[in-house]
Amino acid sequence: MTQREFAIKGIATDAIKCVSEYEGLSVEYIMEQLILGTVCIPANINHKSMSYRGIGKGLKTKINANIGTSSDYPNIDEELAKLEVAIKSGADAVMDLSTGGDLTKIRERLLAKCRVPFGTVPIYEVAVNALEKYGAIVKMKVDDIFEVIEKQGEQGVDFITVHVGVTRSSIERLKKQKRIADIVSRGGSFLTAWILHNDRENPLYENYDRLLEIAKKYDMTLSLGDGMRPGALADATDRCQIEELITLGELTKTALDNGVQVMVEGPGHVPIDQIETNIKIQKSLCQGAPFYVLGPLVTDVAPGYDHITSAIGGAIAGMYGADFLCYVTPAEHLGLPTLEDVKEGVIASKIAAHAADIAKGVKGSLDWDIKMAKARKALDWKQQIELSVDPEKSSKIYNSRKSSEEQGCSMCGKYCAMKIVSEYLDVEVNKC
Amino acid sequence: MTQREFAIKGIATDAIKCVSEYEGLSVEYIMEQLILGTVCIPANINHKSMSYRGIGKGLKTKINANIGTSSDYPNIDEELAKLEVAIKSGADAVMDLSTGGDLTKIRERLLAKCRVPFGTVPIYEVAVNALEKYGAIVKMKVDDIFEVIEKQGEQGVDFITVHVGVTRSSIERLKKQKRIADIVSRGGSFLTAWILHNDRENPLYENYDRLLEIAKKYDMTLSLGDGMRPGALADATDRCQIEELITLGELTKTALDNGVQVMVEGPGHVPIDQIETNIKIQKSLCQGAPFYVLGPLVTDVAPGYDHITSAIGGAIAGMYGADFLCYVTPAEHLGLPTLEDVKEGVIASKIAAHAADIAKGVKGSLDWDIKMAKARKALDWKQQIELSVDPEKSSKIYNSRKSSEEQGCSMCGKYCAMKIVSEYLDVEVNKC
Repeated sequence: MTQREFAIKGIATDAIKCVSEYEGLSVEYIMEQLILGTVCIPANINHKSMSYRGIGKGLKTKINANIGTSSDYPNIDEELAKLEVAIKSGADAVMDLSTGGDLTKIRERLLAKCRVPFGTVPIYEVAVNALEKYGAIVKMKVDDIFEVIEKQGEQGVDFITVHVGVTRSSIERLKKQKRIADIVSRGGSFLTAWILHNDRENPLYENYDRLLEIAKKYDMTLSLGDGMRPGALADATDRCQIEELITLGELTKTALDNGVQVMVEGPGHVPIDQIETNIKIQKSLCQGAPFYVLGPLVTDVAPGYDHITSAIGGAIAGMYGADFLCYVTPAEHLGLPTLEDVKEGVIASKIAAHAADIAKGVKGSLDWDIKMAKARKALDWKQQIELSVDPEKSSKIYNSRKSSEEQGCSMCGKYCAMKIVSEYLDVEVNKC
Repeated sequence: MTQREFAIKGIATDAIKCVSEYEGLSVEYIMEQLILGTVCIPANINHKSMSYRGIGKGLKTKINANIGTSSDYPNIDEELAKLEVAIKSGADAVMDLSTGGDLTKIRERLLAKCRVPFGTVPIYEVAVNALEKYGAIVKMKVDDIFEVIEKQGEQGVDFITVHVGVTRSSIERLKKQKRIADIVSRGGSFLTAWILHNDRENPLYENYDRLLEIAKKYDMTLSLGDGMRPGALADATDRCQIEELITLGELTKTALDNGVQVMVEGPGHVPIDQIETNIKIQKSLCQGAPFYVLGPLVTDVAPGYDHITSAIGGAIAGMYGADFLCYVTPAEHLGLPTLEDVKEGVIASKIAAHAADIAKGVKGSLDWDIKMAKARKALDWKQQIELSVDPEKSSKIYNSRKSSEEQGCSMCGKYCAMKIVSEYLDVEVNKC
C-alpha cells in the first residue's frame, strides 16, 4: 500500500508520524492532506534507512539537489561526494540524473548512501540504453521504458519524473507557438523526438495505467514532468506550457484516484511578474497537488550565477505556494557542476525556501531569524556564526578580516551602530 | 541651478540629454519627471567627466556599490581597486563610506577616478573627527556637521545620505516599539546617541534649510536616510520605521519646493511578503520620489550569502517600483568586503535590477534575454559567453568542464535537448 492508501484507511505509518514530528504538525493534518493529495511522502518500500520528508501544503518548503554522471564525466566517486555535500548542506531530496557509466550500479551505490528521498528520470536510462543497443534514442521500445521503471522501483527509487504531458497535442501547440528555445527538458526532448519519429502517442501517456501499477507496487511517487517548460523568459507561460499543465492536472487526478502519490513539475525560465500566475494556475488545474519547480530563473543572461537567478524565482514561487524547489547551480547552462557548485546551489536554494517559509507563515520559521537577530544585538559572534546557514563560510570571512576592536567587525570597527546604540539608547529604554 | 530647476525653467541640460539617450526615453519625459520629483539626476556641478545617470520612475533600475576604508583597513589603494571593479562589473553609482585614514584625501582620489555618480554619508566624517577632536562622537558640534557637508559639496560629491528623519519623535516611537535589533544604521546610531546625550533635536532636521542651501549650491542630491530601518526581519515595517518615513515624506516635499533634488532611502531586513507594502507606502508618503533600498534582505540567517538574500529582496522591490538598489556583499554582517566580494555584490545586484526591469516593463530590457535565448538555441557558445552578465566567470566554468561533444556542454554531453529537438522538431516546424 502507498502512504496515501494508508492514510485513506486511517493508518498512521512510521513515515506519516516522522513527517508530523519533523514539521511540528499533527498526524491528523498530514493524513488529511495525503488523502486530499496536497501532500506526498516519497518513500519507496525498498528504500531503507531514510529520513522521511513530506512535500506539500502547510509543510516547510523542500529543496532538491540534482547530481549524476554525464557521458563526459562518468566518475561515480565524484557523484558520491556530491551526494554527501548536498545532504550536509541541507538538501531535502536528491535526484540522480546520471547518463554516463553503469547507470544501475551508480544508482545502487547512491541509493545505499542516500538518507533523504531519492529521485530519478527513468527515460534517461532508457535513452542511454537505446543509443547503445539500437543506435538511436528514437528507436527505444515501449517495453524498454516500463522495464527500466520497474527495475528502478525495485531498487528503491522514491520518486520519478515522468514526462506524461508531452503528447501529440502539446507538440502541435508547440509548433503553432513558435518559441525561441522550443524544448529544453532533456526527457521532454527524447519523448518529442520519439513521438515525431515514430508518429505515435507518448507511451507514458498512452500506457499511464501500466505506469500507475508500477508506482503503486513500490510506492514510487510520480513527479509529472513538464517537458514543455519554458527555457527562455520570452517563452514563459505560453499556450503549449499551459496545454501540458492541463494534461498533467488530469493525470494527477487519475493517479490520486488509483492511490498513487503524485506531484507536478513546473518551470523553468519565468519573468518575476509571471511567477504568481504560474503557481496559482498549477494549484487550480492540478487540484492543489504539490508543485515542484525548477528555479524558476528570472533572467536568461546570468550563466555562472544561475543559483542566484533561481533563488530569486524560488523564493517568490515558494511564497505563492510552490512546495518543492529544485536547486540550480552556478554551472547551469555551462557544464556539469563541481562539488563546490553543488554546495552553492543547495545553500542558495535553502535561503530561498527559508525566506519563502517566513513569508507563507510556516510554523516556527521566523524563530531562526529571531535568534540570529538577538545574537547580532548582543554582538555574540560565536553564536552568529553557529546560527548562520553556512557556519564554515561565515567563520572564514569573519576571521580573515577580523577587527582589532574586541566586539565589532572590520566593516565598522570602532563605529559600530550596535555598540553605540547599546551605550546610549538601551540605557534610556531600560529606564522606561 | 540644480537639474530640477533647469527642468522647471524648460532648459534641457547635457545631463538631461545624456539620461534621455541612455534610457531610450524622450528628453521631455525626463524633464517632466524631474519637475514632478519622481526622477533625480545626481550630478554635482564640481564632479567632472561623469556619465550622467538618472534614477526614478520609468528608468532602468540602478545599483549602487558601497566601498570605503574602515578603521581596521585604512588602505586607499584597495578602495581604488574596488572602485574600478565595481564600475567594471556594472555599478551605476558608488558610495564612499570611508571611516579610516585621511578621509578628505581618500574622497578626492576616489572622486577623481569615479565616472559614475558618487555618494557619501557626511556624518561619518563628522563622527570620525569628533572622536579624534573631542574624544566622543556625541560631542560633535552642529557647525561641524555643516562644514563637512559644505566641504564635500565643494569636492564634487553627487549625493549624500542625511538621516534627517531620526528625530526625538522617532526615537520615542523606537523606545515604545521595543525592537530586537534597535538601530543598525551607523549614521542613525550617531545621531540617536547625539540627540539622547545632548537632549536636543537632530541638527539636520532642525537646520534643514541650511542643508538645502548647501545641496542647492552644488546640486548635491539629498538621499534622505532611514536611520530607523529595520535590521532584523522581526523589526520590519514597524511603527518607528513608518513614523520616520512620514517625516522623510514631508522633508521630500520641502526639498522639492526649494528646487533641491531628492531621493528616499528604505530598508533593510524585510520578509518577502512585506516588500510590496514597503514600496507602495514609500511611494505614497513621499509623493513618488525615487526609492533607494538597501537590499532588502529577506532573511537574517545567511551571513556569507547576503548578496543572495538581498538579490531576492532587491528584485522584488524593483518589480514593485524601487528605483535604486544598494548592493550587499557576501561579507555583510561579517567584515569589510574584499575586491572579490565587491564584484559578487555588484553582479548579484545587477541581476536583481535586470530581473526587476523585465517585470516592470522597462523599455528594451527583455532584448538581452532574447539574444541569449537565441544563442542558446543555436548552441553558439561564444555568443552565450559574450552575452552573459560576467563573461569571465561563464567562460571559466564552460572551459574548465568542456564536453567532448562538439556542440553540447558537459552537463548533457551527447544527450543535449537542444540538439535533439533541432534534429526532429525543427524539421517539422519548418515544414509548416
